[in-house]
Amino acid sequence: MGQNVAHKLIATHLVSGDMVAGAEIALRIDQTLTQDATGTLVMLELEALGLDRVRTEVSVQYVDHNLLQTDGKNAEDHDFLRSACQRFGLWYSKPGNGVSHPTHMQRFGRPGKTLVGSDSHTPAAGSLGMLAIGLGGIEVAMAMAGEPIYLRMPEIWGIRLTGELPPWVSAKDVILEMLRRHGVKGGVNRIIEYHGPGLAQLTAMDRHVIANMGAELGATSTVFPADQQVRAFLRAEQREEDFVELLADTDATYDVTDEIDLSTVEPLIALPSSPGNVVTVREVAGRPVAQVVVGSSANPGLRDFAMAAAIVAGRQTHPGVSFDVNPSSRQILQDLTKMGATLTLIAAGARLHQSGCMGCIGMGQAPANGRNSLRTVPRNFPGRSGTREDSVYLCSPETAAAAALTGQITDPRDLPELLGIEYPHIELPDESSVNTAMLEPPPPKQADRVELVRGPNISSLPDFPPLPDRMAAPVVLKVGDDVSTDEILPAGARVLPYRSNIPKLAEFAFTQLDESYPERALASRNDGGHIVVGGANYGQGSSREHAAIAPRYLGLRAVIAVSFARIHWQNLANFGVLALEFADPGDYHRVEQGDVLVLHGVRHAIGAGPDVTVHNTSRDEEYATRHRLSERQVAMLLAGGLIPWLREQAPAAT
Amino acid sequence: MGQNVAHKLIATHLVSGDMVAGAEIALRIDQTLTQDATGTLVMLELEALGLDRVRTEVSVQYVDHNLLQTDGKNAEDHDFLRSACQRFGLWYSKPGNGVSHPTHMQRFGRPGKTLVGSDSHTPAAGSLGMLAIGLGGIEVAMAMAGEPIYLRMPEIWGIRLTGELPPWVSAKDVILEMLRRHGVKGGVNRIIEYHGPGLAQLTAMDRHVIANMGAELGATSTVFPADQQVRAFLRAEQREEDFVELLADTDATYDVTDEIDLSTVEPLIALPSSPGNVVTVREVAGRPVAQVVVGSSANPGLRDFAMAAAIVAGRQTHPGVSFDVNPSSRQILQDLTKMGATLTLIAAGARLHQSGCMGCIGMGQAPANGRNSLRTVPRNFPGRSGTREDSVYLCSPETAAAAALTGQITDPRDLPELLGIEYPHIELPDESSVNTAMLEPPPPKQADRVELVRGPNISSLPDFPPLPDRMAAPVVLKVGDDVSTDEILPAGARVLPYRSNIPKLAEFAFTQLDESYPERALASRNDGGHIVVGGANYGQGSSREHAAIAPRYLGLRAVIAVSFARIHWQNLANFGVLALEFADPGDYHRVEQGDVLVLHGVRHAIGAGPDVTVHNTSRDEEYATRHRLSERQVAMLLAGGLIPWLREQAPAAT
Repeated sequence: MGQNVAHKLIATHLVSGDMVAGAEIALRIDQTLTQDATGTLVMLELEALGLDRVRTEVSVQYVDHNLLQTDGKNAEDHDFLRSACQRFGLWYSKPGNGVSHPTHMQRFGRPGKTLVGSDSHTPAAGSLGMLAIGLGGIEVAMAMAGEPIYLRMPEIWGIRLTGELPPWVSAKDVILEMLRRHGVKGGVNRIIEYHGPGLAQLTAMDRHVIANMGAELGATSTVFPADQQVRAFLRAEQREEDFVELLADTDATYDVTDEIDLSTVEPLIALPSSPGNVVTVREVAGRPVAQVVVGSSANPGLRDFAMAAAIVAGRQTHPGVSFDVNPSSRQILQDLTKMGATLTLIAAGARLHQSGCMGCIGMGQAPANGRNSLRTVPRNFPGRSGTREDSVYLCSPETAAAAALTGQITDPRDLPELLGIEYPHIELPDESSVNTAMLEPPPPKQADRVELVRGPNISSLPDFPPLPDRMAAPVVLKVGDDVSTDEILPAGARVLPYRSNIPKLAEFAFTQLDESYPERALASRNDGGHIVVGGANYGQGSSREHAAIAPRYLGLRAVIAVSFARIHWQNLANFGVLALEFADPGDYHRVEQGDVLVLHGVRHAIGAGPDVTVHNTSRDEEYATRHRLSERQVAMLLAGGLIPWLREQAPAAT
Repeated sequence: MGQNVAHKLIATHLVSGDMVAGAEIALRIDQTLTQDATGTLVMLELEALGLDRVRTEVSVQYVDHNLLQTDGKNAEDHDFLRSACQRFGLWYSKPGNGVSHPTHMQRFGRPGKTLVGSDSHTPAAGSLGMLAIGLGGIEVAMAMAGEPIYLRMPEIWGIRLTGELPPWVSAKDVILEMLRRHGVKGGVNRIIEYHGPGLAQLTAMDRHVIANMGAELGATSTVFPADQQVRAFLRAEQREEDFVELLADTDATYDVTDEIDLSTVEPLIALPSSPGNVVTVREVAGRPVAQVVVGSSANPGLRDFAMAAAIVAGRQTHPGVSFDVNPSSRQILQDLTKMGATLTLIAAGARLHQSGCMGCIGMGQAPANGRNSLRTVPRNFPGRSGTREDSVYLCSPETAAAAALTGQITDPRDLPELLGIEYPHIELPDESSVNTAMLEPPPPKQADRVELVRGPNISSLPDFPPLPDRMAAPVVLKVGDDVSTDEILPAGARVLPYRSNIPKLAEFAFTQLDESYPERALASRNDGGHIVVGGANYGQGSSREHAAIAPRYLGLRAVIAVSFARIHWQNLANFGVLALEFADPGDYHRVEQGDVLVLHGVRHAIGAGPDVTVHNTSRDEEYATRHRLSERQVAMLLAGGLIPWLREQAPAAT
């Protein structure tokens, strides 16, 4: 049976396991990517692991998130990250060099390689024929330490592309079409693989758009073949020698299939406040627009900015519109400037911002409450823009530029008639302005004498003591169903700057639900710790590992819930918190906040099988509970978490 | 006796008073300038005044301060300001169009005119032969309403310039030389007038640099003649027809004189944390630098950015330096881009930010604590950068660019030897990229049907009831000497977004000194109000009128102090708060926080003369106090403040 691209990528990196959907597999990782909002913690984890030097082929630390610098903390994080790169042997991409995903693709991406990143849009590199996966920071740290990553073998979802995109329709509309058809859970436990004759028209950067927002479908990753478009991309990046062809076998099959005739795709738009709320632009045309934002990892290519520029060229954006342009990388801004398109954008009224994520992750550019903002970014979850009552739409650069001119949602196909604008022909340069000066290479040799530059906001990772054999601890907090990691540990401009400072960050833990939790929890810390009781789907949402670490720092030793969301469950195990599910969900209602629970012989129990008995000494009751830990995870938990376990396991190697 | 330029400007606008230093004069105002951090309140004041349409020749509202938009408040302020411009007949300069001072100079400045602005760097327009003065917002609002402004006739300080600046030395070094000689109080109650043969070499934009930072000398204003350099500037701005020659008479004299031989000026630098701490760059060369910031109203010209670009051209900024470039206006960024210098800066590693004040007023770009930041901005007061323990130096673009390359403080005259960089020859275009598309003109006719767009963060100005005849109120707060307006009402990224929302802003009043003041004060509000007792020099520092309005909103009716700083004293009168000085400073020590003070027949008393008797009913004591109000101010105070007074006085006109 012929292999598809995803199978080939997995097969060449398989360390253990069978390539059968649902089975646990372990994969060797060639490259890693971290950004500053998650990377500072990864560096603290490397330090805690005692790692001397990363063991990947390439590891790069980008600074693209915390660029506003409203006080000294961001700049101190940058200094810390730079020193950590020197210390552990990573590339350092300076603030202003650009967003991790396009920059990584331009400078480091190589067909046939695996990449993990502590950012959910890491799969964008699938555009080059790589297998790229977003993970929690500690798993990326492990990959840096040379460990494989573990995941359940996904289904491979083949999407056959036929036909050609019509004028005014572009790659963003293709991924919006996927979201229109399949919604935000359509890709869960799947790798999406695009194939078919329609690919020939899509450049590598177009494919980046589609692979990037595969994350919005919930997919594990998205892959494209490494074909002549990829070769052309690498040639323009002046590294054609990195090209390796990687195509699906002609008789390759897929676990699931779908087809898109590109010639039928229309300009699409995701309504507030989910990437899955997709309708045609035509359906909502005429709604007033107060802001248009172009940029982000979802539309990062030179072509996307040049298209927006060509549409507004020689005209003025609407007086009521703020037209914000976020170059995705320094290199792309250089190319754009050489082409004359930067001048065009400025002359048309654009606010040209520094290269980085900016408004996409709510770092500035927050719109007025209730006013419509059209953005080429990948996500429009409520409040992500920084505005509580925001109204953010997701669309292509063509649709964004049209609204910038008219001040209302406008199908770009109406521009010829409305404003006499013909569909622009964009001439891109054959060679990019390659410039690695804002990329500091790792020192050639092991650099353990480099000292980490620790500003007052950089703490060390706390110690994680082993699991005690007898746990007797109060239920400091009892919460309901569907508690998200946003509620466990919020993000945003208020909290994000503390991502390197666990003690400070812990002051925000659970405060969205109960303001006094941190104080009560901390009181438990030196006295056997505490327990949280939760309902169903505990820990849904973002993968942030801070939601496990911060409560753990405050003394959390166990969470007993009706059920857990997968990633947070994994993060709890990684940081030594025992996650137990009530065997009888009705027992959830018997426990009250303040009860003292006792687990006897728990070290032995979790190794012997899934069953753990919990005594409620306040009510003289017993509850049957179960864990779902693998053997590896049991060992980790006994040691106190992944970091102490790794240290125990291979003291010589780390 | 021949007249100097300042005298001519005053004489042609004199409404009342004698031009004798120290006497009160009233001046007719032709133009006004407001920015967003102070302007929202000005618009609320215009609304409270019931004004239909501004009566100046030109009034412009700029949006240049609150550009970060970390939540919806900034964008809502922008919407509000835009609607207020339509309502009251102002020009609206959109976010991204640029910093008020250079933009005003480029588009609206006219020799021979008067300008007031609610920004302390308004005197920059003196570069064109204007009389330009920074004031509290309500005084700017009055000028918009057609009222004259009142001030004490300043001394005219003639600075004769001779010689020519050597290579690597520029206008910034000239004003730093002034600060080196005279310190931050050297210009108090003076207008600085530059004259002499050295002027011929200084372009209008060079003069802007010098006039702008006259504010740092404490000067009321700075003026230059309108000579051929001004004509050339206006020609490049495509409005030579606005040129009017305005020169000092050949036999003009000055109240005070000084002379600078430009050929002897060296590269200078102000050390942290005062613009008055000036030394030669040579003296501190070699200190490490972590950040270089180019831009702001202190070095706003195309020449300044082009010079920095020419110095770093073809090289890479130091890996340890963040090189932040803030274009001062959209127009200048366009010209810079056309020249190729934008590309040069980006290629050299610059972080190119949107046009605006940005780091200069602590809106982003905060350096790491304790790391040196070299900036071309006008001020380096402690914490202004946004970083608590900041270390900000002020210097020229030449010195800034040198540090960006070397990573340490470097005398730019050493660049030829150090790096083989010759002094660049800058060729500026004969014509600027004039583009008014981000400047929305006022509607041609009265527009009272335009509704103000009030987001949830825009409150109305509170009512200010008349002064009661009997005041019986507790001393809710007693403070010491030298309390600044920063302590009365702080600024910064935390507080600045609330500048349009007095009730919310009031929650920060005095909290730097006493966290519970707002609560205690508010309790007094509907019960006769309260009194604050202060020491000497009460209300020093920034001119922000919010420091009067916010406590007034909380019920403040009188401040009794040993002495007052001038501007805050004026702001208190403008907002109906009675300011009294202890006749015997020793009485300050007799009053305690919590005492109840009674003023009988105070309406009559303040009209009859300076003496007001204060009874301390808690201690059964009496204190003699004095006010220093003019007749006009007494009338204002009786009415409740300037706004109710104006309404009373001319209900038909307003």
